[in-house]
Amino acid sequence: MTPYYHNYLQLDKILGSQQPISFEAGNEPAHDEMLFIIIHQAYELWFKQILFELDGISAIFNKESINDNTEDAGIILQRINRINKILHLLNEQVHILDTMTPLDFLSFRNLLAPASGFQSVQFRLIEAKLGLRMQQRHRAAYYKRTNEGGFTDVDYAVINAVEQAPSLVVHLNNWLERMPFLNKELWVKFSTDASTDTPINTHPFWNTYRKLYADSLNVYEKNKLADFDYILLNYRGNLTEEQCSELRQQFTATALQAALFIILYRNYPLFQTSFQIIDALIETDHLLGTWRHEHINMVRRMIGMRVGTGNTSGAGYLEGAAQMHYIFKDLAGLSTFLIERRKLPALPDAVLQHLTYG
Amino acid sequence: MTPYYHNYLQLDKILGSQQPISFEAGNEPAHDEMLFIIIHQAYELWFKQILFELDGISAIFNKESINDNTEDAGIILQRINRINKILHLLNEQVHILDTMTPLDFLSFRNLLAPASGFQSVQFRLIEAKLGLRMQQRHRAAYYKRTNEGGFTDVDYAVINAVEQAPSLVVHLNNWLERMPFLNKELWVKFSTDASTDTPINTHPFWNTYRKLYADSLNVYEKNKLADFDYILLNYRGNLTEEQCSELRQQFTATALQAALFIILYRNYPLFQTSFQIIDALIETDHLLGTWRHEHINMVRRMIGMRVGTGNTSGAGYLEGAAQMHYIFKDLAGLSTFLIERRKLPALPDAVLQHLTYG
Amino acid sequence: MTPYYHNYLQLDKILGSQQPISFEAGNEPAHDEMLFIIIHQAYELWFKQILFELDGISAIFNKESINDNTEDAGIILQRINRINKILHLLNEQVHILDTMTPLDFLSFRNLLAPASGFQSVQFRLIEAKLGLRMQQRHRAAYYKRTNEGGFTDVDYAVINAVEQAPSLVVHLNNWLERMPFLNKELWVKFSTDASTDTPINTHPFWNTYRKLYADSLNVYEKNKLADFDYILLNYRGNLTEEQCSELRQQFTATALQAALFIILYRNYPLFQTSFQIIDALIETDHLLGTWRHEHINMVRRMIGMRVGTGNTSGAGYLEGAAQMHYIFKDLAGLSTFLIERRKLPALPDAVLQHLTYG
Amino acid sequence: MTPYYHNYLQLDKILGSQQPISFEAGNEPAHDEMLFIIIHQAYELWFKQILFELDGISAIFNKESINDNTEDAGIILQRINRINKILHLLNEQVHILDTMTPLDFLSFRNLLAPASGFQSVQFRLIEAKLGLRMQQRHRAAYYKRTNEGGFTDVDYAVINAVEQAPSLVVHLNNWLERMPFLNKELWVKFSTDASTDTPINTHPFWNTYRKLYADSLNVYEKNKLADFDYILLNYRGNLTEEQCSELRQQFTATALQAALFIILYRNYPLFQTSFQIIDALIETDHLLGTWRHEHINMVRRMIGMRVGTGNTSGAGYLEGAAQMHYIFKDLAGLSTFLIERRKLPALPDAVLQHLTYG
Repeated sequence: MTPYYHNYLQLDKILGSQQPISFEAGNEPAHDEMLFIIIHQAYELWFKQILFELDGISAIFNKESINDNTEDAGIILQRINRINKILHLLNEQVHILDTMTPLDFLSFRNLLAPASGFQSVQFRLIEAKLGLRMQQRHRAAYYKRTNEGGFTDVDYAVINAVEQAPSLVVHLNNWLERMPFLNKELWVKFSTDASTDTPINTHPFWNTYRKLYADSLNVYEKNKLADFDYILLNYRGNLTEEQCSELRQQFTATALQAALFIILYRNYPLFQTSFQIIDALIETDHLLGTWRHEHINMVRRMIGMRVGTGNTSGAGYLEGAAQMHYIFKDLAGLSTFLIERRKLPALPDAVLQHLTYG
Repeated sequence: MTPYYHNYLQLDKILGSQQPISFEAGNEPAHDEMLFIIIHQAYELWFKQILFELDGISAIFNKESINDNTEDAGIILQRINRINKILHLLNEQVHILDTMTPLDFLSFRNLLAPASGFQSVQFRLIEAKLGLRMQQRHRAAYYKRTNEGGFTDVDYAVINAVEQAPSLVVHLNNWLERMPFLNKELWVKFSTDASTDTPINTHPFWNTYRKLYADSLNVYEKNKLADFDYILLNYRGNLTEEQCSELRQQFTATALQAALFIILYRNYPLFQTSFQIIDALIETDHLLGTWRHEHINMVRRMIGMRVGTGNTSGAGYLEGAAQMHYIFKDLAGLSTFLIERRKLPALPDAVLQHLTYG
Repeated sequence: MTPYYHNYLQLDKILGSQQPISFEAGNEPAHDEMLFIIIHQAYELWFKQILFELDGISAIFNKESINDNTEDAGIILQRINRINKILHLLNEQVHILDTMTPLDFLSFRNLLAPASGFQSVQFRLIEAKLGLRMQQRHRAAYYKRTNEGGFTDVDYAVINAVEQAPSLVVHLNNWLERMPFLNKELWVKFSTDASTDTPINTHPFWNTYRKLYADSLNVYEKNKLADFDYILLNYRGNLTEEQCSELRQQFTATALQAALFIILYRNYPLFQTSFQIIDALIETDHLLGTWRHEHINMVRRMIGMRVGTGNTSGAGYLEGAAQMHYIFKDLAGLSTFLIERRKLPALPDAVLQHLTYG
Repeated sequence: MTPYYHNYLQLDKILGSQQPISFEAGNEPAHDEMLFIIIHQAYELWFKQILFELDGISAIFNKESINDNTEDAGIILQRINRINKILHLLNEQVHILDTMTPLDFLSFRNLLAPASGFQSVQFRLIEAKLGLRMQQRHRAAYYKRTNEGGFTDVDYAVINAVEQAPSLVVHLNNWLERMPFLNKELWVKFSTDASTDTPINTHPFWNTYRKLYADSLNVYEKNKLADFDYILLNYRGNLTEEQCSELRQQFTATALQAALFIILYRNYPLFQTSFQIIDALIETDHLLGTWRHEHINMVRRMIGMRVGTGNTSGAGYLEGAAQMHYIFKDLAGLSTFLIERRKLPALPDAVLQHLTYG
């Protein structure tokens, strides 16, 4: 059959799925309910695309090994960049609701309760596939309250099942841990500063780097060295358990060492794509943060201090989530541990050979 | 039944409508075809919303009279602004395709032919409801070539039928023609410049204004007076028929007089909403122009100088459409006929009474 | 003298004001310091424009009375909209810094200390002219610490002096308080619900409206009635002083009554511009909120958890400011007190006459 | 001296450079002239930054060789990306003028003549440094008409001098020509299709690729093969001189071969940065095109069909420039010559060794 635009896109279904409740017999039609439905449907279409890209990324990470000499890393980067462009669009899209006044919203709001955007399964799956776990979720108890704005049992089970599978955080952590350029044998001739006194004698590079970092701290920043020791060297020192869990949350010290090394030497050819992947994921978190920020503003504008249709506390709920749902915080936090580029140690030849072209 | 997000939005249908042809047995799956489908579906959702708003605007204009003392004009403005916000988003949305390289597109492009975005019935209906007619359409002959990228007979008939109904241009023209503030009896005491020599002795205000406009023209601009005479006073003078049809296309001289008057005295309370409506429609045209501009760039990036899947000349087709499909050109063109605000004639009391609050 | 672009714009000065410290003899040139200087200068140019618009708005409000039959309100609206467009641009502009990596920043960061963006006098004046007062400022003590990142004595005095002058909040409050449509004599024949039992017997309209509002509250929202009583009727009831100061901060109950009335009946011609002014100011706050949100993200990306060059706590400082520096919160909060449009009381003729055209 | 924000940014000069002509004694102050000045100054600040980045890129290309094993390519890419982000911002910035109505502009427009944005030397230098030459400029004769809106002799000389220096087009062409991976000796064992009949027997890879390309053309596209032959193989065939100069404008066939090869095999690690550079420059052109498109719309909105202050034909001038001033058209046009990825020839080992890590 000759492809035809309308059929190819299944527009009968797409354009036949808008039935405002306020248009039903017995209700007073609220013109703006159509916008409310369509904007949410557009969100869900894009959520499907994001999930499709996340699955595509996962499929590459699931291969036995990502070979730096293939296109694997390039494709992963392209897909994260696409996710980010979509998130950027979604952050613009919310502003179409600025053309709906709070009074317009009130005219159909009560008909929807207790349904609400909280119940978007796809959004929860995006969070889960990125790396959020139920115990980290703000007000996780809400998720189960089926008839009061939570999920059905089936949907709740779906979210939990996806949370059990390896997330992008896990994949990324493994990928970083496997990076070969920190293998000690490559560093045997690396001259380390004799005066270094790392808390635990570890790797020649980190011995040296720790010293340089300590020197870079000004008088107000001295306590950052303890953070460095815990996050990168896994040396707990005097830190309490709570401080530790706050300092490093999802990634291992080994993985964070690799990430920091890539950030420091990002301009070597081999690291350019890896660096862009790390940078793009920090941007993903940023964009999700902006999404929550814009949502808080929009909800506050619509309903002020009232209760959300899903019986959450509306804007208050979103503020809580905005604080807790950062996923790649460990990666973003590595900026704390940089030193000036011109003070970076030169790399030994054995390492350089790994980072350059034959 | 308790409303539930998934059911309310009919997500079974929305999220079950993506079947990439390249994923079918016998083809090689092209990852990016999913994006291609979803972005077009998102466009179509928003087109539906734009059509819904245009119908809502039409319904108000179809009332016997729009009463300036009711909310009618305010609601029309709100809806045009919403359409503009959507168009603005759609112009951003096209950039998500920047994450698909031309090579990625090639891997499924041939499977789609001769289907193409040209065949979007809803987009054609938007153009038609705004005011575009088949005879103005670029390469109108394409529309009928069913099996080579044109429309089915049914869809072609739908587009034509909608073109017969009064468009927004017609509604707006009628609304402007009915404006009462240019009724001659309100202007009887208006002192006109004795030296004015309008080609046809018309209305006291325009006699005076024409003189002021002529004085404002510099030596390079003298020929604009003939344009003024034809566009606003319907005086053809020495202009050829072709020049006339180029100068004023869709609106009558009477309507354009009202529009120019509103633009000149826009700050009077009565005119604030009317002015915003005119300004917003000029913006609508601008946004559709940007849409075409972005499309040309995107298509050129994707397929260079090749033929479009719909057998149009691709970017070349779009350039032609970009030149011809302006709809509110007559309104935008009124900027040519402004004079400095401080030289504007003061309005007679009888007119002022119409423009202010009791 | 014939105007020439270069001279008209004083480009000798504009383009001759960039002297990176790292380019000075003895330092190592940091390519990215140029960007750092120019982006801040571009911000300051736009801050000047915002201040110019705020002064223009103030000049209109300072006239003995704003006449609804003149262009005053229209011009105020145009200027607020311009400020908002500028703020929107500034929120985009910050992302140009995404092209500077943290390592790039580190290479000149120490040369700037203790100077920092905290010290932008113009930004503080914008806050002051909008309505922020020193006692509301987050970490106000920082402002005075001249040699550790605070302001010079002269600049500190300038900020304080501007805070003494009537701010936009004050102007707006006065303008709202003077609105004539709530004068009781216009409402004498207004039939009020006999069953209403307002805590203090006030105005016929609010007696009725309070009843309608109470009916609209669901079981989780009952406590909102006490908020309504305090914010709009100035009836404190059982609320603590702290709760009161949290509920209504800068505007008087009389002014908020007028604002809510305008929001409710916004589609009447007289209210269309007033409503847009209120809505635009809520948007101003929103945009300043986004500015702070984007700044937090940018600073966190650049320096992680380190101390800011101005010895503030960097991102931590900005988070505090983001919570406290809302200016038109009272107006935004009125969404809490809306009821459905179809339940709104019809207005008495005496009031209607004030809202419509002669 | 302790750095202080105000001094570091030289704000005395930056904020002391706005003197609207309409504010001078004898004129009527036009509020909006301030905006007009400041927006142009902001543009010029950003133009300075773009020129600074272009010079930085040039400095790298001027080194004896760009070593793929250093950070050179990465830094070039970072700077082009920065230029693009700035251009993107500038395209947003123009919309701030939407808050100035044509009537507002008219109140100071005549005071500025014949000065106009046409006279921005920095913008002309950007075009020149990218690669535009005077003979390609639309209405080049205008540039010299000093007292009628053109440049002073000094400025005209500056523009011409910069045009003589190697532009980014030249640098890029040389860099592409030097790429080693198409050296014939690497391809000796490459099996070519015996049936290939290239017009001139050239390189084994292109012999094969030309055949694959010919096979990919559908019945409407057969004439593209002649374009391929001229653009990539430098074989003129039956093409007229005019067709040739239209087909390939600034780059040599050798450079375009390298560029197409990079585009085809972009996912190999060595090519990832090179590909991003090519893609970013096509985006630069696109953004400059959007700049002109937005400018046309803005000018048309402001002055309709009147003559520009610089005595150009206003919007008409800009349309001409929009057609002619594309700089990297040759690169963008390579999309015409792609084939499906799965049909790409596998690369010989000798070539692969060049593209991968040791």
